[in-house]
Amino acid sequence: TINSDRLWDSLMEMAKIGPGIAGGCNRQTLTDEDAEGRELFQKWCEDAGMTMGVDTMGNMFMTRAGTDPDALPIYVGSHLDTQPTGGKYDGVLGVLGALEAVRTMNDMDIKTKHPIVVVNWTNEEGARFAPAMLASGVFAGVLDQDYAYDRTDLDGKRFGDELVRIGWKGEEEVGARKMHAYYELHIEQGPILEAEGKDIGVVTHCQGLWWLEFTLTGKEAHTGSTPMPLRVNAGLATARIMEMVQEVAMKNAPDAVGGVGQMKFSPNSRNVLPGTVVFTVDIRSPNQDKLDDMRAEIEKRAAEICAEIGVGCSVEAVGHFDPVTFTPELVANVRNAAERLGYSHMNLVSGAGHDACWAAKVAPATMVMCPCVDGLSHNEAEEISQDWAKAGTDVLLHAVLESAQI
Amino acid sequence: TINSDRLWDSLMEMAKIGPGIAGGCNRQTLTDEDAEGRELFQKWCEDAGMTMGVDTMGNMFMTRAGTDPDALPIYVGSHLDTQPTGGKYDGVLGVLGALEAVRTMNDMDIKTKHPIVVVNWTNEEGARFAPAMLASGVFAGVLDQDYAYDRTDLDGKRFGDELVRIGWKGEEEVGARKMHAYYELHIEQGPILEAEGKDIGVVTHCQGLWWLEFTLTGKEAHTGSTPMPLRVNAGLATARIMEMVQEVAMKNAPDAVGGVGQMKFSPNSRNVLPGTVVFTVDIRSPNQDKLDDMRAEIEKRAAEICAEIGVGCSVEAVGHFDPVTFTPELVANVRNAAERLGYSHMNLVSGAGHDACWAAKVAPATMVMCPCVDGLSHNEAEEISQDWAKAGTDVLLHAVLESAQI
Ligand SMILES: NC(=O)NCCC(=O)O
Ligand SMILES: NC(=O)NCCC(=O)O
Repeated sequence: TINSDRLWDSLMEMAKIGPGIAGGCNRQTLTDEDAEGRELFQKWCEDAGMTMGVDTMGNMFMTRAGTDPDALPIYVGSHLDTQPTGGKYDGVLGVLGALEAVRTMNDMDIKTKHPIVVVNWTNEEGARFAPAMLASGVFAGVLDQDYAYDRTDLDGKRFGDELVRIGWKGEEEVGARKMHAYYELHIEQGPILEAEGKDIGVVTHCQGLWWLEFTLTGKEAHTGSTPMPLRVNAGLATARIMEMVQEVAMKNAPDAVGGVGQMKFSPNSRNVLPGTVVFTVDIRSPNQDKLDDMRAEIEKRAAEICAEIGVGCSVEAVGHFDPVTFTPELVANVRNAAERLGYSHMNLVSGAGHDACWAAKVAPATMVMCPCVDGLSHNEAEEISQDWAKAGTDVLLHAVLESAQI
Repeated sequence: TINSDRLWDSLMEMAKIGPGIAGGCNRQTLTDEDAEGRELFQKWCEDAGMTMGVDTMGNMFMTRAGTDPDALPIYVGSHLDTQPTGGKYDGVLGVLGALEAVRTMNDMDIKTKHPIVVVNWTNEEGARFAPAMLASGVFAGVLDQDYAYDRTDLDGKRFGDELVRIGWKGEEEVGARKMHAYYELHIEQGPILEAEGKDIGVVTHCQGLWWLEFTLTGKEAHTGSTPMPLRVNAGLATARIMEMVQEVAMKNAPDAVGGVGQMKFSPNSRNVLPGTVVFTVDIRSPNQDKLDDMRAEIEKRAAEICAEIGVGCSVEAVGHFDPVTFTPELVANVRNAAERLGYSHMNLVSGAGHDACWAAKVAPATMVMCPCVDGLSHNEAEEISQDWAKAGTDVLLHAVLESAQI
């Protein structure tokens, strides 16, 4: 089993880069802090004897050689980028847990037939540049690299330019690597494992997602001198769509969720009815039909709501993935590892999207999850115990060794 | 009567400073563009023989001497600052119309007993720094100068610092001046005059206002992995409050309005339920009881809405004025001037707030209004005809001369 103090120290060390304001992290993708985090990770990996490859999307691949020159590598990792007010573990545990697994193999002088590659995927969060899991999506061939380069943040900065700016645009062709298997450890980001008192989530599926970016066009007008019947109030339409999304999600719960995280009023002045409101609806379900039906219902009803007020409504899908079924053999490896190590476990459907969802398009893939306090994530107060981190990383190590063949 | 081509040329010249992106203006208070507009206005006034005084709030007072050294001046003016996506006339017509009135007096060699002071009030719009009519409010003793200096914009810049930065913090003690009367010409910013086919609005009242800044505190959480029942969604509470404000306004219409112009989600990330939402409700009515009842109802129901979701709710009044009754003698001067000049006219209640509302606290005051196309204002597409501008300015000139005594 792994060295949980060393893992914890590394987690705490990484958390110092791009510290948040409330105990968490703000290490958004392609910022100077992201570059600093990458350098530290590179150093740790090289200290552990690994060699680096970086592709044209900035994805980092740190290789521990195997004994069979013809064997495809086992990829293990997650992401080091965070939300603007993110936690210390979301993504980071998956990368540093994979590093800890390699460090443990080194300690024990374990050789594997298949090489082990520890991965840090660029822009998993999608906070700065939509969609989430952008670089693993390009790796898997689901998203286009030019499309990715052209994504802009709220300041209008391009992903492609920022990747060059921070010095992490590599030479390797993205997606050229072939994987024997892909494993990802992640905190659950939801409340189930803690509530059920389980150490390990054996992740069988991941729910699908649509990010629908609405642009509502009303009529900018004075809030005081414009009589109520003359208003073409894009803000009011926004309120009604938010309430409707809530209703659609509740109707489809428990295996569906829906909400709005990003919102922009223009011109955003107290005495001007907004001329334009842009916001993103996030809907998810593990059930493909439900997911697509929710999308259709929301778009239809939003159009009706807007038509009633005279507000223009356009919708663009800025993020999407279908529900994912992870590879049964690898899922079994995770379950067996938990069983063998004596950790309590249960099957889990991932509520969040992960790079594993895209990796699953091009390789056998699965995930390991550990609990987090109150199911809280995407919040600086995100917390896990050192024991949970150890259990998750132990299971990761054993499942990976199963695939990598000692 | 006035020289309408000269007035129009000045309006178009001023509109070139801080041009908008759609034909209007972005000359927000205490920006470099505001400074540039002030300099041009100063030059024009000095060319017309006026002398300048500037007070510690940056209010500009341009004096045309009277014949009686003991007579208090007649103040005439409005504001040169605009909304971020403002029009070319809101405020500007009132300042340049007053200048045109003086230019006309010069042309005709008219001497008045009372001096005439053309005023440009700082930060009428309240777009960058809430509340609106900030500097006339301090002048009238309703707002405190230190409070005004401490107001911050969305970037955290202080009003007091920005006033110094653009070089327009004057020496004169604010509010030390005494007025014999105050007149303000303004576009209606509403649809009534145009709909009724009248040239002139004789402004008898101004409706009162509350700006209620709500800060809702939810729980930042992952939009995907947080089950619906566990959400403490400040965005949902916001939607419900917006709908409730609409309902309260509709119930009290036609003599009430309500809406939301400014909105901020934090952390404003697509896959994070907002931890904090800050937005401003703008409610108005000419009826004092109605205005205060609406405020009470909105605050009470907002608290209930938030309590139901578990969201924290705090409210700060960041802007307020009671309904205003303008001085009957001055109102009669406006009506008589319109009558004498053969302009069609009607009584009007101002839907927007104006510096005249605060001037009315310390002097006899009233306003003249002219129509604007489709009642549209706080929109770059704001438009008036040259004839409307002429009619308003003619009436302003004659009413001012009535008070100033030839
Ligand atoms: N794990 C995680 O938070 N990923 C971000 C993408 C998503 O919103 O699910
Ligand atoms: N006239 C005008 O638009 N003033 C701004 C203050 C208000 O919102 O009424």
